[in-house]
Amino acid sequence: MTTTPKGLTAIFQPRSIAVVGASSNPNKTGGRPVHMLIKHGFAGHIWPVNPNATEIQGLPAFATLDSLTGVPDLILVAVPGAGAVAVLEKAAEMGVPAAIVLSAGFAESGPEGLALQSRVTEIAAQSGMRIVGPNCLGAIGVRERAIGTFSIALEQEMPRVGGISIVSQSGNIGSAALRLLGESGAGLARFVATGNEADVQAADAIEWLADDDETRVILCCLETCRDAGRLTAALDRARAAGKPVIALKIGVSEAGQQAAMSHTGGLAGSDRVYDAVFARHGAVRVHSLEELAQVGAAAEAKGTRRIGSQPSVAVIAASGGFGVMMADAAAANGLAVNPLGEAARRRINTALPLASATNPIDATAQMSADPDILGELLDAVMEDEANSTLCLMLALSMEIPRLRSVFTAALAEVTRRHPDRTLVACVSGPADAVQELSNLGVVCFPTIDAAMAGIAALGRMEAIAQETRARLPEITPAELDADACRNEATARATLARTGLPFAQDITATTADEAARAAESMGSAMAMKILSPDIQHKSDIGGVELGVIGAEAARAAFDRIIAAAAEHAPKAAIDGVLISPMTSGGTELILGTTTDPTFGPVVMVGLGGIFAEIFEDTSLRLAPVSRAEAAEMLRELRAFPLLDGARGRAPADLEVLEQAIVDLSIFAARHADEVAEIDINPLLARPKGQGAIALDALIIPTVTPRQESAE
Amino acid sequence: MTTTPKGLTAIFQPRSIAVVGASSNPNKTGGRPVHMLIKHGFAGHIWPVNPNATEIQGLPAFATLDSLTGVPDLILVAVPGAGAVAVLEKAAEMGVPAAIVLSAGFAESGPEGLALQSRVTEIAAQSGMRIVGPNCLGAIGVRERAIGTFSIALEQEMPRVGGISIVSQSGNIGSAALRLLGESGAGLARFVATGNEADVQAADAIEWLADDDETRVILCCLETCRDAGRLTAALDRARAAGKPVIALKIGVSEAGQQAAMSHTGGLAGSDRVYDAVFARHGAVRVHSLEELAQVGAAAEAKGTRRIGSQPSVAVIAASGGFGVMMADAAAANGLAVNPLGEAARRRINTALPLASATNPIDATAQMSADPDILGELLDAVMEDEANSTLCLMLALSMEIPRLRSVFTAALAEVTRRHPDRTLVACVSGPADAVQELSNLGVVCFPTIDAAMAGIAALGRMEAIAQETRARLPEITPAELDADACRNEATARATLARTGLPFAQDITATTADEAARAAESMGSAMAMKILSPDIQHKSDIGGVELGVIGAEAARAAFDRIIAAAAEHAPKAAIDGVLISPMTSGGTELILGTTTDPTFGPVVMVGLGGIFAEIFEDTSLRLAPVSRAEAAEMLRELRAFPLLDGARGRAPADLEVLEQAIVDLSIFAARHADEVAEIDINPLLARPKGQGAIALDALIIPTVTPRQESAE
Repeated sequence: MTTTPKGLTAIFQPRSIAVVGASSNPNKTGGRPVHMLIKHGFAGHIWPVNPNATEIQGLPAFATLDSLTGVPDLILVAVPGAGAVAVLEKAAEMGVPAAIVLSAGFAESGPEGLALQSRVTEIAAQSGMRIVGPNCLGAIGVRERAIGTFSIALEQEMPRVGGISIVSQSGNIGSAALRLLGESGAGLARFVATGNEADVQAADAIEWLADDDETRVILCCLETCRDAGRLTAALDRARAAGKPVIALKIGVSEAGQQAAMSHTGGLAGSDRVYDAVFARHGAVRVHSLEELAQVGAAAEAKGTRRIGSQPSVAVIAASGGFGVMMADAAAANGLAVNPLGEAARRRINTALPLASATNPIDATAQMSADPDILGELLDAVMEDEANSTLCLMLALSMEIPRLRSVFTAALAEVTRRHPDRTLVACVSGPADAVQELSNLGVVCFPTIDAAMAGIAALGRMEAIAQETRARLPEITPAELDADACRNEATARATLARTGLPFAQDITATTADEAARAAESMGSAMAMKILSPDIQHKSDIGGVELGVIGAEAARAAFDRIIAAAAEHAPKAAIDGVLISPMTSGGTELILGTTTDPTFGPVVMVGLGGIFAEIFEDTSLRLAPVSRAEAAEMLRELRAFPLLDGARGRAPADLEVLEQAIVDLSIFAARHADEVAEIDINPLLARPKGQGAIALDALIIPTVTPRQESAE
Repeated sequence: MTTTPKGLTAIFQPRSIAVVGASSNPNKTGGRPVHMLIKHGFAGHIWPVNPNATEIQGLPAFATLDSLTGVPDLILVAVPGAGAVAVLEKAAEMGVPAAIVLSAGFAESGPEGLALQSRVTEIAAQSGMRIVGPNCLGAIGVRERAIGTFSIALEQEMPRVGGISIVSQSGNIGSAALRLLGESGAGLARFVATGNEADVQAADAIEWLADDDETRVILCCLETCRDAGRLTAALDRARAAGKPVIALKIGVSEAGQQAAMSHTGGLAGSDRVYDAVFARHGAVRVHSLEELAQVGAAAEAKGTRRIGSQPSVAVIAASGGFGVMMADAAAANGLAVNPLGEAARRRINTALPLASATNPIDATAQMSADPDILGELLDAVMEDEANSTLCLMLALSMEIPRLRSVFTAALAEVTRRHPDRTLVACVSGPADAVQELSNLGVVCFPTIDAAMAGIAALGRMEAIAQETRARLPEITPAELDADACRNEATARATLARTGLPFAQDITATTADEAARAAESMGSAMAMKILSPDIQHKSDIGGVELGVIGAEAARAAFDRIIAAAAEHAPKAAIDGVLISPMTSGGTELILGTTTDPTFGPVVMVGLGGIFAEIFEDTSLRLAPVSRAEAAEMLRELRAFPLLDGARGRAPADLEVLEQAIVDLSIFAARHADEVAEIDINPLLARPKGQGAIALDALIIPTVTPRQESAE
């Protein structure tokens, strides 16, 4: 007796599948799985359940789940809404380990459906039965022919068995990825479309696949994330298992995000936060369905060959024009095209005297004349260490049988001779030629742009695999000072205690105090109204700059208080903040926001227009390590300004990095109470002179209690 | 008796073709054209010329051109180098109107080949015979089966006859485009790959195609431009003929440009100048081979249907996920996704109560159930005016016969009912389904990204067709003032006479003059050394800023002169330029450069780091119209800073526009003498207060005579 599979194992590797709502019509939701299980040869039991039939598609049908001859490992539920819930209750009672609810009529259809869906979640939680869906396209175990889906992608044929697994919230996108991969001859392991995610989330599937022997690469399409912790833990697990995760997150634009929210009921976080999540947890982000499939297939074909964690590429084409396009595409993807070493150049020109042997290598049409010459050429480049990989343009060659045999023979030899290096080819067909090359370990892409983007993505995967992850600061949640958010002075004081560098400041509550402050500072001062009720201080005349001397300070104090009284008569006034004017250096903004899914996020950028017009900011999940803070600054397009460009003094980067770390720790520590922090500007000063924050704002989280407080 | 075709007509529509160097081997350069002419059924005479054969591929062979039974309209030359030249001489003598030199061994192979190629150019010029090549892939007239090429793209089958023509400098890229279009079922008219361009340039082909009855869309792949005037005139002619030109210019990156230069022997202009050329002369630029083919096929399928000159798009998918992706891709391509009007929403929800009808329209899987419902849905969107076009995701539907017939029927009806509007579909296959839809006038793209980029490109074409072209300023070449380039003072004076706004300035040649200048200005001054020999004035202590009063001016004068004497003892000193310090406003840079191919180019951008780090500049060929100058400013990402963003006063845009126009006229007028002009900074001041140029540099063209002057 074998053990009953548990959890998601029962979904991907069931030994018996009951289809509840099975239909004789193979085009119906309850008919197609039965049809495909039979057609593609599922080896386990197929139990159609339908009270109105004795036979379904040639198999004996059962009236109810009760009447089955055993407890199925997996049930597919194709009856809608309330009926599906009743089936799940029955199945839970019977001890069925897993269910896929294909039918719709749940959260996506209104309040009644939402209530039904909550019941599905409950059943899963109470019984331990894992439930995929509802309103989903289901799951597939490719080797096992375990077809728990009605996707038309399998209507014609099954994909080849291989190491790529697909997790998609959207069934149609997952299906399209499956189809693209199948057509390209790539090998698949598992597929799951999680739909409404009443129980099983995409994250759970990733976690299971991380431990799955068959899965070598995980493709993932996300529209939303319902549980940040589950997703990040799953990504970490896949990384630890050495399985690259390639993620397509959709809902990038405002229009797309609106659509995704209305469609998934998910939260509206910033799309950029997903970049931060993927960066932290080691997923490689792609930006289209085609790229998802292409990079997935490439990762599988590449296997353990090396491509370089910051790839550079030697480019070979039989045409100067293609060489130019390849160099352009390499540059667009941040790949260097380094000149070959002299030995390689000499070898190439010995074999092909007319070839331009620098890089791009314009090997002329001669390269296809003789497999020996081509082999020599490829070998010379593979031996050369100037570039970490090689990209060969095959253009139409594989369509011509004569050329196909020349190229295939040469590539087989070169990949055999260089088992550790990656050879990339641009080749769009025919499909069997692409598969033949992939089996040799040649990484194939259909276009030049796809090849160069793909090399960059594969390089990123290699970098992730090699990365020593910096330890994150430990977070001890703490209570926020009661008045931290009250006004700028309290915010400054609070943040200063965490180590952030603020200029000296004095709070004056009378004109005399202002005058004394002026005397003690002895320089030009900025004076700003302090009030928990005034947001835009300048707008109401609450700011005076460049105030010099006691008398001026006294007068400014009176004007500021009078202006506040006039323009914000109901505002509580805490006084006037006085601090020395500071100039010079480069203005940065440093801040945090709270993503509704992933929590506190720290952001840094150059000040004002840089952040606003050029969106030149860098984001990470808080807290960040010092290494990540350094990375954040270096990611800014304007980083050269901090690094001595245009004759400027290099900024004190170490102090800036530490400020980012300190703020990120503060935000993480007070994640529940603080919604947003703005330090704007943070003045970066030359090396050795640190940085000075000139303003601070802490916006508290609005809790329901506070909202109704008035 | 018919007239002998002239010029390029003989290349695309010959009645007789002689193949010199004809071979019995259909894989050789001289054999494949003969093979394909026979195979694909060329109706005219095919005359193989080969002294060593009496028969070639079943046709009688001729020993020499002399022995032919008539004068061929076109000869294909497959004999190399010097032999080819001899053939051309003979052909010219015989009055052959056109030749294609397929063979290599010319400019690409070294100095000897270069000399041979010059001879080819001479023969064409002297005889009037038009010569394509050498070292080229040749030409094709598709309807006529006039196959003057050895491209393997035609080895299997000819493309369908249609309205797309291809002009490519690179044979391989042109061939690949031909193949992509042929595979997608698109209809082709002409093809030419111009190779080394000894006589016929890509521009000449474009010009001929502009007048060709069969050609409706011109695709063009450029690596270089050997004659700016011919190219721009050809583009203008195509525009006047209402034929869109879709241009792929390669050599975008530095690496790509290096490769293109070494490969074509072309000049290293800035790639960005091509954007300016295409913008001025109405070509739509694309950025990959695939995009070239896809947008070309789309333009042909669209015909005269309207898509909007600034398209917005209603998005329909049977899946929420695809709707999200489509909205993202629309946003990435600058396309609005506007909510449908209420009437359309009501109609959609009457037909499909569960459909999300705003936009994206998530029509759910129901839309494929019933052609009437789908028709109603599409019709509702087509009647709605909220968006200028409609994009329908077909995903895998066309692969399933049942769905294919539903969709095709509905689309046929909708395109018939709305003959003026464009319906776009995302569909990747099967090829015959795509062709069936294209024939209905549905514009098909294989991916979501391609569809949205394609809609943007088609919209741009529509905008170009509608554009009323602003009259360019008339240019009267003039001689430059003898001392215009001598120093900043002369440059300022010269440019001020063209209308450019400079602050007052005084040239002091003695300390007393400096003191008097200070008295007359009465404000803080900038003082700068004037010398034709000192480039970097600050570096040698030649600049003093914020000088106030006569005494200070006197001292500063002495310091500046002393510094120059010390650090640049051999420099000619013209004095010290004194001008009032000016601040406030926004710093722009305004300048011109001279492209080696296209001549003077005017550039504007925000000052300093904006231009340098963010490359936020805008470029046009000089001279520009006022409308173009306005466009240039609005193209800047930082334009909001000039337009009142962040509470700033809006800049005096009219004065800035006029300054751009004035400088562009100056640069065009003095194109031969001036290499570069830098006005940096040009201070943009609030509306009504104009602008002030604070510095000026005119760099003269270095003529060979001047270079050897010392």
